[in-house]
Amino acid sequence: MRISFTKMHGLGNDFVVIDGQAQILPELSPAAVRNIADRHGGIGCDQLILLEASDKADSKMRIFNADGSEVEACGNAARAVAVLLGEKAALETAGGVIALTPAEGGASVDMGTPRFGWEEIPLQMPMNTNRMPVAWDGLENPAAVNVGNPHVIFFVENVADVPLSDLGPQIEHDPLFPERVNVNVASVKDRKTIELRVWERGAGLTKACGTGACATAAAAIRRGLTEKRVIVHLPGGALEIEQAGDGRLTMTGPATESFRGSFEWDDFA
Amino acid sequence: MRISFTKMHGLGNDFVVIDGQAQILPELSPAAVRNIADRHGGIGCDQLILLEASDKADSKMRIFNADGSEVEACGNAARAVAVLLGEKAALETAGGVIALTPAEGGASVDMGTPRFGWEEIPLQMPMNTNRMPVAWDGLENPAAVNVGNPHVIFFVENVADVPLSDLGPQIEHDPLFPERVNVNVASVKDRKTIELRVWERGAGLTKACGTGACATAAAAIRRGLTEKRVIVHLPGGALEIEQAGDGRLTMTGPATESFRGSFEWDDFA
Repeated sequence: MRISFTKMHGLGNDFVVIDGQAQILPELSPAAVRNIADRHGGIGCDQLILLEASDKADSKMRIFNADGSEVEACGNAARAVAVLLGEKAALETAGGVIALTPAEGGASVDMGTPRFGWEEIPLQMPMNTNRMPVAWDGLENPAAVNVGNPHVIFFVENVADVPLSDLGPQIEHDPLFPERVNVNVASVKDRKTIELRVWERGAGLTKACGTGACATAAAAIRRGLTEKRVIVHLPGGALEIEQAGDGRLTMTGPATESFRGSFEWDDFA
Repeated sequence: MRISFTKMHGLGNDFVVIDGQAQILPELSPAAVRNIADRHGGIGCDQLILLEASDKADSKMRIFNADGSEVEACGNAARAVAVLLGEKAALETAGGVIALTPAEGGASVDMGTPRFGWEEIPLQMPMNTNRMPVAWDGLENPAAVNVGNPHVIFFVENVADVPLSDLGPQIEHDPLFPERVNVNVASVKDRKTIELRVWERGAGLTKACGTGACATAAAAIRRGLTEKRVIVHLPGGALEIEQAGDGRLTMTGPATESFRGSFEWDDFA
């Protein structure tokens, strides 16, 4: 059986997208995901995106890491799907239904409303999520936000000075975060500009984390540090995050098709 | 302009093969090769293989490393082309015309006749190439062979004990080898089996070097260490090398298609 796919990338994050609506797919095992994601013997990608039929939206997006595990939200993946679909669409994800709009060189994605309740993050105990009374080795008083997945954000003078590869795993696994957490260190450059580095839960340091950019912008706006429209600079490139009057966040950024192809299912199953 | 390609791999070495006979291609710049070889934003490969029309053979194979530079012989690439062509063919390479025969799970490739003349390797000065009176930090008395590219082969007790990542670059750049050299360390396990590690000229330690396996088998046969048909085990897998009565070497080993695809020329040009 021959399976068609599209290879996409955005901000240094790359995806194999398989449309399970346009073709009949066998069940995708973790081993098959790993084989497809392999950069030498397979197709090669950070994540495999599977589009399925949805009864709540135009399509349903499932996301698998290269290790075969299924994950929830991924802002970069949503932009890739928007570019692939090529028109406004509603996309069902594990974090809810989101609206996609293709834009010049990429897409805008409605990322929903950030949640600030301590039990929504979730935290282990009640706490002020705007300025938490906690510290790890000089990193202190972070904000916490859930934007489909849990984030903690430290505002610092200089993001390059933070030993994030040491502190990231320590904070990710702190018992304060029962579902673990994505760790953001951010520097507000001016009222329209944030510089950001992210330690992603389960993935480590990445070039660009779309949900991290959204969570950080939401936390900065909540503290009054920036305007409601802000450019977030990540190592892999920039994302524009805008918060509407109703609180919903829109993320706009690049996504591009690299190539299209097809493979023999049995080769990777 | 849309360009079709096939992604192939063999013994851990992977290739994007573009058939320039079946389609009209613009000139391939080093920058375009680098973009295509990029594993995140491009297609991703160790080498790009370009098939062109030949007036000496069925096709002409040109090989480009991921850095954009054009290289001569590559045994793994020749097997990939054999599998892709799917029938016996004569292939023009920078090292001469070679015969390809598809085999179960891979291909056999006629790698020509090894050359042992000191000026054919080439060496800087006349020397016995069967047992050279030279040494580098405990590695001594190598053989030297040219099989389309220059090789030096050290026969040792245990290939894992040799600090090849230190000695490889030192020997590769020794003035004794005016065109530099591929450095092989080999252990003869029995008269039909060799274990081999290779420091490839310009590429460093690789999982499998087809010309290294041929050069090493030729040197072992010349010294009477093995029979004329030998299995060479490399970190990436095994190759069978056979020397015929006329001296010509045949290499048999795996090569597989991973997937087929197409890309927009302007995206990578």
